Amino acid sequence: MRILIIGAAGMLGRKLSERFGRDQVLGTRPISDLTLADVTGGDGIIAADLSEPGVAGELIASRPDVIVDLAAVVSGEAETDFEKGYRVNLDASRYLLEAIRLAGSDYAPRLVFSSSIAVFGPPMPRVIADDHPTTPATSYGTQKAIVELLLSDYTRRGFADAVAIRLPTVCVRPGAPNLAASGFFSNIIREPLHGRPAVLPVAAEVRHWFASPRAAVGFLIHAAAMDTSVLGRARSLTMPGLSATVGDEIEALRRVAGDDAVALIRAEPDEAIARIVDGWPRGFDARRASELGFVAEQDFDEIVRVYVEDEMGGVLG
Amino acid sequence: MRILIIGAAGMLGRKLSERFGRDQVLGTRPISDLTLADVTGGDGIIAADLSEPGVAGELIASRPDVIVDLAAVVSGEAETDFEKGYRVNLDASRYLLEAIRLAGSDYAPRLVFSSSIAVFGPPMPRVIADDHPTTPATSYGTQKAIVELLLSDYTRRGFADAVAIRLPTVCVRPGAPNLAASGFFSNIIREPLHGRPAVLPVAAEVRHWFASPRAAVGFLIHAAAMDTSVLGRARSLTMPGLSATVGDEIEALRRVAGDDAVALIRAEPDEAIARIVDGWPRGFDARRASELGFVAEQDFDEIVRVYVEDEMGGVLG
Repeated sequence: MRILIIGAAGMLGRKLSERFGRDQVLGTRPISDLTLADVTGGDGIIAADLSEPGVAGELIASRPDVIVDLAAVVSGEAETDFEKGYRVNLDASRYLLEAIRLAGSDYAPRLVFSSSIAVFGPPMPRVIADDHPTTPATSYGTQKAIVELLLSDYTRRGFADAVAIRLPTVCVRPGAPNLAASGFFSNIIREPLHGRPAVLPVAAEVRHWFASPRAAVGFLIHAAAMDTSVLGRARSLTMPGLSATVGDEIEALRRVAGDDAVALIRAEPDEAIARIVDGWPRGFDARRASELGFVAEQDFDEIVRVYVEDEMGGVLG
Repeated sequence: MRILIIGAAGMLGRKLSERFGRDQVLGTRPISDLTLADVTGGDGIIAADLSEPGVAGELIASRPDVIVDLAAVVSGEAETDFEKGYRVNLDASRYLLEAIRLAGSDYAPRLVFSSSIAVFGPPMPRVIADDHPTTPATSYGTQKAIVELLLSDYTRRGFADAVAIRLPTVCVRPGAPNLAASGFFSNIIREPLHGRPAVLPVAAEVRHWFASPRAAVGFLIHAAAMDTSVLGRARSLTMPGLSATVGDEIEALRRVAGDDAVALIRAEPDEAIARIVDGWPRGFDARRASELGFVAEQDFDEIVRVYVEDEMGGVLG
């Protein structure tokens, strides 16, 4: 089993690479080769910009059995840099699909694509069903929705065996506080766990859709290993997740790390962020993916504990 | 009012050009300039292949107020020639959008795009609602759905003022019998009206969604002239039409042209065509477009009479 990860230097890419390195198998099949690529390059990671014509062809010349495509410009940057967003989030994935198609009719690898709940836009019901129409309200969501359509068509034509998984907001993200509008969802847990203050820009009633980095890596692996013959034409799956409010987050933090940790959260309402977050989904009935074996956390305590286990060696700082 | 029609040599393009030439106005505004372009060129039509980089920029250098984009490779050809389908149905429209964006922030023309009910795919309810998800089952439908997403994003960003109209199957098409799988819907009316035999490859119970060429031209003109401020982000409109069976068609033909005309239809069941048609939509509740003033025929007699009036000078025989 030969595996290629594109976007391997990102947070999920690194965690997925580590997991493959540890497991040495995907499903029941041993991993004989793991190739890592990212536009930034890095230790053990090939520097490759798939938005340049020809690069994808070189990268898949070894005919990997599984390709995980995680490369993306995030939502905020796709909005501020229109051309870069389309180049990285649309053109690069299309070049990859074309390289796969042109590699010959005997090659149709499993292609796992990290899509996003940003393919949905207002108006949205409180709980969004699997067959809700994709009407993205951002360039990022538009690009993800377009690649979903391409993956479905290339799969139908037999060129690839693609699965697009729509990831919840990944929380708690490790590393430095993120400037993205969604950053505070992670900041208010991670920073207090490390004894540092955090700013909360929205009301405690704000509700959103979450999964841990560990669950997200699990989604990617399950999508890479699953039997896709049951999917038919519908190759885009909304991943399960946890619908929780900021208040739920804070109470989970209190149960795991105590009142002192919660006291480090300072409310500092930000109307601009509140307006952006107001346009985001609040929850899904991700029945189809759940029935297909994708599993996320059941409560926010679990999400906090995953952070403590995976990022703090299980020990509160 | 300067107008550019792309795909002007096609059936709808020619009819729309004639109509603009006759009307001399769009809504209440006089038409000062009408530019026609098509990959084939022709009498009074500029030869321009918009799937070539740079061509769109030249074509819109005169900054038309309204651009009607009708250029497309039809469904069957997009399926047999994968590359041509994506080049003409996706890349050309994207080049056009990019040319419009790069023409400057003071230029955001009305862009009317001929989309299709092929953006919908099985499973479909008997009557499809305006918010039904787009899950195309063909490369053609995929390409139309992608351009719809692009139009919506470019409009949201202020680069264009786009309206995508999802046309019903246009019937009765003038001209020679069409080899497309849908051709028989027109053939069984047009050929007998001219005293010629026609083959019916499916059962009389087969139901589909229709509008006349005259109604389709009316849709394009209304989309070009309408107030788009009421549309918000949702720029793709399923056009009204008539849900009718092949039996309804035949009885309409009988009422307009008599039993002798109907006797020219010969049943010759074709399993392959029946299977293709079985995957097509049967009807829509096109409420939103109707409320916005788009109007189609109410019964098939009217569709037959439109053919007699517009293609036969109102005289049978």
